[in-house]
Amino acid sequence: MKRKVVLFIAMSLDGYIARKNGAIDWLDTNVDDPVEDFSYEKFYSTIDTVIMGRTTYDQVINELSPDLYPYKDIQSYVLTSRPAQPKKHVKFINEEISELILRLKREAGKDIWIVGGHSIIKPLLQHNLIDEFRITIIPTLLGNGIPLFDSFQDEIKLHQVNSYVRNQLTYLHFVRK
Amino acid sequence: MKRKVVLFIAMSLDGYIARKNGAIDWLDTNVDDPVEDFSYEKFYSTIDTVIMGRTTYDQVINELSPDLYPYKDIQSYVLTSRPAQPKKHVKFINEEISELILRLKREAGKDIWIVGGHSIIKPLLQHNLIDEFRITIIPTLLGNGIPLFDSFQDEIKLHQVNSYVRNQLTYLHFVRK
Repeated sequence: MKRKVVLFIAMSLDGYIARKNGAIDWLDTNVDDPVEDFSYEKFYSTIDTVIMGRTTYDQVINELSPDLYPYKDIQSYVLTSRPAQPKKHVKFINEEISELILRLKREAGKDIWIVGGHSIIKPLLQHNLIDEFRITIIPTLLGNGIPLFDSFQDEIKLHQVNSYVRNQLTYLHFVRK
Repeated sequence: MKRKVVLFIAMSLDGYIARKNGAIDWLDTNVDDPVEDFSYEKFYSTIDTVIMGRTTYDQVINELSPDLYPYKDIQSYVLTSRPAQPKKHVKFINEEISELILRLKREAGKDIWIVGGHSIIKPLLQHNLIDEFRITIIPTLLGNGIPLFDSFQDEIKLHQVNSYVRNQLTYLHFVRK
């Protein structure tokens, strides 16, 4: 089976992935008596590669998970024009995201997770290179922020695989038709 | 029980309610072997008033339902600055949407359906006057169009009531916290 490119990301109901200033504090939705939810773990077991932009990477290591890099058992690609100290399992590369994707898809492996952010996602939509969309809806209307889906040229028709609600979050799962 | 203001509307996964030119052809999602779905009928039984902008009204009578006005058993308000021939059960009014809402909420009745479009929804979000959000997600990424949630000032926190998938459509149901 060919490895797939999966966008797995959370957005507010009005389609933002971060506040205008990049803040993601609103992702934290406290619920009383949460039920067990292994959505993330199950998804994570299907991938062996993560791709993100430099801003997202900086947010992960400085804010989301400063003590432990969360993807250290798999391969990370960080797209950046600013050089960075290479790290084990993290490649900093200055390459077009579309070229990287096409190169990785020719290699064998598990699925590829597009973590974010906007600068990575926009060209992938433009070139229709995302195979699966797994969007988690946070029950908030932010009013403004950084949009997940900016404008792009050609309509993409989707097929819903499976969607469900858990702990106030809506997990949507679509594949490209 | 106080009557509620409900936004019941369909959007593409990327948050549009119409193409840039207003077209809504993409709302039609054909599925093989559809299951029975009374989501609309059940919702419709909870309201006695519909409010829409003039563009939406024109679309309803000219395009969506040219032969039979679909809301003739309840009260319609069409907000417009252009006068129109009054019709049975349809009031054309030139009033601020927020004022109309506050006036209607003081009257007894069933819930109030905000049909659309953008020019009606935007001030209601700005003034936080929508009690329930019932958003149906169409499995399509349009790429661009008329957004459902444009920018507005204050974040609105929601509580998910019940959401489900039927015939490829995701019915989301949130109430304002």
